[in-house]
Amino acid sequence: MTKSSSIANFLDGLASETPTPGGGGAAAVCGAIGAALVSMVCNLTIGKKNYAEVEADLQAVLANAEQLRAELTGAIEEDVAAFNAVMGAYGLPRATDAEKAVRANAIQAALKSATLAPLRACKACWEVIALAAIAAEKGNLNVISDAGVAVLAANAGLRSSALNVFINAKAIKDRDFAEQQLADVNALLAQAAAATESVYQTVKTKIGA
Amino acid sequence: MTKSSSIANFLDGLASETPTPGGGGAAAVCGAIGAALVSMVCNLTIGKKNYAEVEADLQAVLANAEQLRAELTGAIEEDVAAFNAVMGAYGLPRATDAEKAVRANAIQAALKSATLAPLRACKACWEVIALAAIAAEKGNLNVISDAGVAVLAANAGLRSSALNVFINAKAIKDRDFAEQQLADVNALLAQAAAATESVYQTVKTKIGA
Repeated sequence: MTKSSSIANFLDGLASETPTPGGGGAAAVCGAIGAALVSMVCNLTIGKKNYAEVEADLQAVLANAEQLRAELTGAIEEDVAAFNAVMGAYGLPRATDAEKAVRANAIQAALKSATLAPLRACKACWEVIALAAIAAEKGNLNVISDAGVAVLAANAGLRSSALNVFINAKAIKDRDFAEQQLADVNALLAQAAAATESVYQTVKTKIGA
Repeated sequence: MTKSSSIANFLDGLASETPTPGGGGAAAVCGAIGAALVSMVCNLTIGKKNYAEVEADLQAVLANAEQLRAELTGAIEEDVAAFNAVMGAYGLPRATDAEKAVRANAIQAALKSATLAPLRACKACWEVIALAAIAAEKGNLNVISDAGVAVLAANAGLRSSALNVFINAKAIKDRDFAEQQLADVNALLAQAAAATESVYQTVKTKIGA
């Protein structure tokens, strides 16, 4: 439902005191905005005579961006589901030792899912950043600033999703699992920061700023 | 119409080869997401016994954030109007010297509007960042990561809107006017970058990352 609600309604939902949609859903929307703007640059480059040389490259970028947009739009609901699963596990009965054990396992399983879901969103945002770099390099100069907006939105989505990875990984008892996900997200953050500034500078140079 | 269209439809519009909605509208949405998440942190802090001391502060932050959210949601349409005004001015007849003079004046007036509109969005995003800093400092720890997402979204909105200031200011012949707007936007960018990293680190520290 969140995906098809209006922007104004989605923003009302974010602002309200209900816990979802929250930062996780907002992060996914930022990433999806980035993917959509990469597609826009491709769509306004493909078919233009002056850009015939890069057409095949941008056709491939467009196909990937549209897949990532679908993935990140879907991540809005995945965030809600992961949150509800964690809350549901914490709400399980804990009157007996057997119940306590079941509950503890359920919490740990839900936390692992709630770590992997935002990590998937981080990876998708990273891929959007990589596509925005190609769009900024090869796309139609008239809309090159949209590649700049794309990379900023995707990087905000990545850094935002990373916060949920940090929070959920912290509570996971399987430290090998948790440390692996943290290493993955930190690697993505580092490469995304460098790539984002590089693309933003490329765009600024191309628009003469 | 853009404001009330669904998120999925808005993203379809971004991705399509129609020039609006484009990066300017996307930037406004990012800023509005930031404002909405500041409100969420306030709404989940106000009324909580453990946060009675900061309640009055967060009531004030909430009122400001809601005003900024309305402003930034309105900026989605303002971007479309500014773009259409520039395109309309370029489309004016230029067969005679009189027509050329009228057209040149119309273009310059439209470019000034198209510089001031994203600059207003930049200022609103900066104010969201300043509110997110208070939310991150005083808000409910359980939702403090949402203040982190808020600041990232608002800063992406600011840097994205700045690209439209750069593009339109460049084509303005009244250089005093243009240089003043560029100085304003560059000052906002610098203070926003520092504040955003500071808030993100505060949030990371508070969530133990």
